[in-house]
Amino acid sequence: MKLNIALLAGDGIGPEVIQEAVKVSDAIAKRFNHQITWIPALTGACAIDAVGVPYPDETHEICMKADAVLFGAIGHPKYDNDPAAKVRPEQGLLLMRKKLGLFANVRPTFTFASLIDNSPLKRERIEGTDLVFLRELTGGIYFGEKGRRDGGETAFDNCVYTRAEVQRLAKKGFELAMTRSKRLCCVDKANVLETSRLWRETVQAMEKDYPEVAVSYEFVDAVAMRLVQWPNSYDVLITENLFGDILTDEASVISGSMGLMPSASVGEHTSLYEPIHGSYPQATGLNIANPLATILSAAMMFEDAFGLIEEAKAIRAVVNQSLEQAIVTQDLVAKGATAYSTSAVGDWLAANL
Amino acid sequence: MKLNIALLAGDGIGPEVIQEAVKVSDAIAKRFNHQITWIPALTGACAIDAVGVPYPDETHEICMKADAVLFGAIGHPKYDNDPAAKVRPEQGLLLMRKKLGLFANVRPTFTFASLIDNSPLKRERIEGTDLVFLRELTGGIYFGEKGRRDGGETAFDNCVYTRAEVQRLAKKGFELAMTRSKRLCCVDKANVLETSRLWRETVQAMEKDYPEVAVSYEFVDAVAMRLVQWPNSYDVLITENLFGDILTDEASVISGSMGLMPSASVGEHTSLYEPIHGSYPQATGLNIANPLATILSAAMMFEDAFGLIEEAKAIRAVVNQSLEQAIVTQDLVAKGATAYSTSAVGDWLAANL
Ligand SMILES: CC(C)[C@H](C(=O)O)[C@@H](O)C(=O)O
Ligand SMILES: CC(C)[C@H](C(=O)O)[C@@H](O)C(=O)O
Repeated sequence: MKLNIALLAGDGIGPEVIQEAVKVSDAIAKRFNHQITWIPALTGACAIDAVGVPYPDETHEICMKADAVLFGAIGHPKYDNDPAAKVRPEQGLLLMRKKLGLFANVRPTFTFASLIDNSPLKRERIEGTDLVFLRELTGGIYFGEKGRRDGGETAFDNCVYTRAEVQRLAKKGFELAMTRSKRLCCVDKANVLETSRLWRETVQAMEKDYPEVAVSYEFVDAVAMRLVQWPNSYDVLITENLFGDILTDEASVISGSMGLMPSASVGEHTSLYEPIHGSYPQATGLNIANPLATILSAAMMFEDAFGLIEEAKAIRAVVNQSLEQAIVTQDLVAKGATAYSTSAVGDWLAANL
Repeated sequence: MKLNIALLAGDGIGPEVIQEAVKVSDAIAKRFNHQITWIPALTGACAIDAVGVPYPDETHEICMKADAVLFGAIGHPKYDNDPAAKVRPEQGLLLMRKKLGLFANVRPTFTFASLIDNSPLKRERIEGTDLVFLRELTGGIYFGEKGRRDGGETAFDNCVYTRAEVQRLAKKGFELAMTRSKRLCCVDKANVLETSRLWRETVQAMEKDYPEVAVSYEFVDAVAMRLVQWPNSYDVLITENLFGDILTDEASVISGSMGLMPSASVGEHTSLYEPIHGSYPQATGLNIANPLATILSAAMMFEDAFGLIEEAKAIRAVVNQSLEQAIVTQDLVAKGATAYSTSAVGDWLAANL
């Protein structure tokens, strides 16, 4: 199969973890006889530095033409700490989501048998956790009108949702639940917010089309609590943009490391695959960042964007093997053991595929 | 001292836990020679049932005249599950906050030595945790304009903050930090929201007035993660209404039980003290609910509203004693041990003061 993949390494540790995902993907392609063409493009702080904007039109065209986008991370402290900065790397991420129509962010959260004791949560609470968040990614308070009035003394952000936006996200949620344990939790704040009431009534109206799916409705504050109390009580969770931002990061704690969790963003055009961690500026260039989240994002890409299920399985299997044999970067290393570098982990995985 | 306390028992288990807080407070009053006058008033579902509105004017007048308000819980399933309900019990809570000007919700989060293994979090992660959230309670998306357009197909909620609103909350945060370890964390989403940028710039401008306080700025998604990873790295956290709603509930997991955590809401008029848990409808009338959160809220009331520090200490001491001796309700009982009823716990505390 011919695979054309846009490669957006981004900032910070992005290029380092992307390089290992490329290494592992190329090894998979060789073993399964595929031809991958990687098409590099700029986004984030590196794009601002090079051409003045965080998501250049040229990058967008490359993404639109590609079969999938593999993305590293975005962000640089020189922009973060300047409240007056006019262009920011994160705007690249938001623009990319909007222009590619990536309305659903898919975030699986699971544990690894060999790493379960790395979690701050007790083993008996997290064993068997296997949940997926579907976060709405192109609406809500992120994209509503925002600004100042009264000479800057008053600030506002508008949260807006249309029924159609809720429906298309919820549809993915119901469909995903049908392929899993048929349980769907709609997370909202319907006791306070009108947008949440629209979410709730829209999902309620869709229940009849999926009679096998058991739907529950929970308030975001209750979920923030139960997610760390009894994470394995959840299966598929759907929620709006900001709640999803907060809850998916919280959920990453379950697995014990942000360095492990992959994600996909899907929607109207090319799908995008990325680790959930950020650009980790302090580690830039040190060859210490954990490449597994990006490598597991590549596995999601093989499976979802190309239907290459065996290839995805092979990547996940070798990642599990590396964890069992403690071929891991410093964030996962046991006390006294030796940490492998980013590239050494990638080398080992590519060699053992 | 003469203490006039408005008593808002509310719904569900509210009346049961309030009764025990009254019992313990009366015992304290007797021991320290105070005269408490309790002035009962209706709020929540019981108020809707009785007079058609969740926060009657009469209740508001009682609260305004009282020296403090002790509050149980609000909410009844017969309203919660009806999206078309015109009046809702929670509106009573929101009205009460707004009309009493309760702009700061103070939520301490700590662990109890004898209960530390009840937490889903590992002991070494939570030992020594002693943090306080100051949640803004009368602004933000809770109170901005909300509604529908396009014939109901589009919903919106407006999040609005003025600099003055941020300042008065932040001032309390700085002052609280000065009485503690002098560390303040401002939680926002300044990489996306204009209201958060106003929060951040306002707090930054106040730093010079509190040169001893070390201020950090963290994004809400990062805090949602770190709060369960390393809760003891935080001291005082300030944040806006909705983020506070989510994070304080999440933080309650640290202590191992919602049934333990007290809170205070303070502002322009009479302060209000309440447990952080809800009305727990399934347990109504069963005499099984944990009264400790309400009793510890009464302790906060003695200390903060009346400056009666010894009285507060005495309550906290006897609560600790009850926990050590396992005089606890079913939510805290060890496997095989006997659970005490709500009223039996209150009786024991009053008798052992
Ligand atoms: C960087 C930021 C704009 C972004 C978001 O809030 O969506 C990030 O936190 C994420 O979750 O991808
Ligand atoms: C009941 C609800 C309106 C309320 C809130 O969201 O503020 C509750 O969750 C709380 O935290 O007191």
